[in-house]
Amino acid sequence: MGASVVYLVTKNAGKVREVEAVLNKYGFSVSPIEARKEELQSDLLEHVAKYAAEQLIGKIPEPFIVEDSGLFINILNGFPGPYSAYVYKTIGTWGILKLMEGAVDRGAKFVCAVALCLNGRVHVFRGEVEGEISIRARGDAGFGFDPIFVPFGYSKTFAEMSIEEKCMISHRAKALQLMVNYLIQVYGVKNV
Amino acid sequence: MGASVVYLVTKNAGKVREVEAVLNKYGFSVSPIEARKEELQSDLLEHVAKYAAEQLIGKIPEPFIVEDSGLFINILNGFPGPYSAYVYKTIGTWGILKLMEGAVDRGAKFVCAVALCLNGRVHVFRGEVEGEISIRARGDAGFGFDPIFVPFGYSKTFAEMSIEEKCMISHRAKALQLMVNYLIQVYGVKNV
Repeated sequence: MGASVVYLVTKNAGKVREVEAVLNKYGFSVSPIEARKEELQSDLLEHVAKYAAEQLIGKIPEPFIVEDSGLFINILNGFPGPYSAYVYKTIGTWGILKLMEGAVDRGAKFVCAVALCLNGRVHVFRGEVEGEISIRARGDAGFGFDPIFVPFGYSKTFAEMSIEEKCMISHRAKALQLMVNYLIQVYGVKNV
Repeated sequence: MGASVVYLVTKNAGKVREVEAVLNKYGFSVSPIEARKEELQSDLLEHVAKYAAEQLIGKIPEPFIVEDSGLFINILNGFPGPYSAYVYKTIGTWGILKLMEGAVDRGAKFVCAVALCLNGRVHVFRGEVEGEISIRARGDAGFGFDPIFVPFGYSKTFAEMSIEEKCMISHRAKALQLMVNYLIQVYGVKNV
């Protein structure tokens, strides 16, 4: 069996690179595709990703994936959570660091939900990584809140890591790994 | 023509009281109704309210209204905007005041979109009120970010005003007033 293509619904080049970093290892190629999708307001990322994917069934080629991620900060009751993209766009890392000024508990987690549409049905996979909010922003790699997130067991922020390093441990990579396991099972053969 | 009922889709008792304060004056009574509605992630409140209303056509009695409001702060690029309810629930007025620490430009506006469904069609009305974010939270009336919003020309926050006072000038009252004008036109007779 040759390389299979997976369509990724996104306009975010950083996401494309990370999904490729995981899927290429298993012989899947990734093709970004732009499609207007309706995003729900929901505290559950799985719900947001699944709903968006379901709106696209029959409109774009399969298998396709819709990915939604968020940063959940403990002492901020999960803020910015499912609205991380909007919060990043408006108050950015500056806003989060301001809200965290003087905070002793800096615990947070990044969560990712990947909705895969295959044969007209949507399957959702979740990954998360625990860590802490740094005191200041560090690093230029990655995107979004990566410069202020330090995963447990590391001293670097996500934005100070190479893409390979980040994709060994990230929430996104974990969700994608579960999806790959499922695809391999369905296709009945490992592509590598 | 007797009093007409308008159904208001909400679980927020504060909203019910404010909608009543406006509509009762025109002979409309307000009946709150709970219905599961899908809320979009969109920077446009009109879009959020319209989409939610359209999902409910045929499922609940008419005329019904779905209302969505947000606080848009100038120097925070419109944050918290359409996600005000979520932001209030997580970081509250404390979070907004923290982000505004030391800010010279404290300008903000409250915006409301009211989607009215009548005869299976949805009409959207918008109201807004300009003002400033106060230095500290003041007052117990109202709900949400009312304790930190001072409308232009006033020294009190919305939460320091009586409901009658707030409903003379609020974003919600303005949108509802436009809706009432429309209803009166459609019904062909003023109910008062």
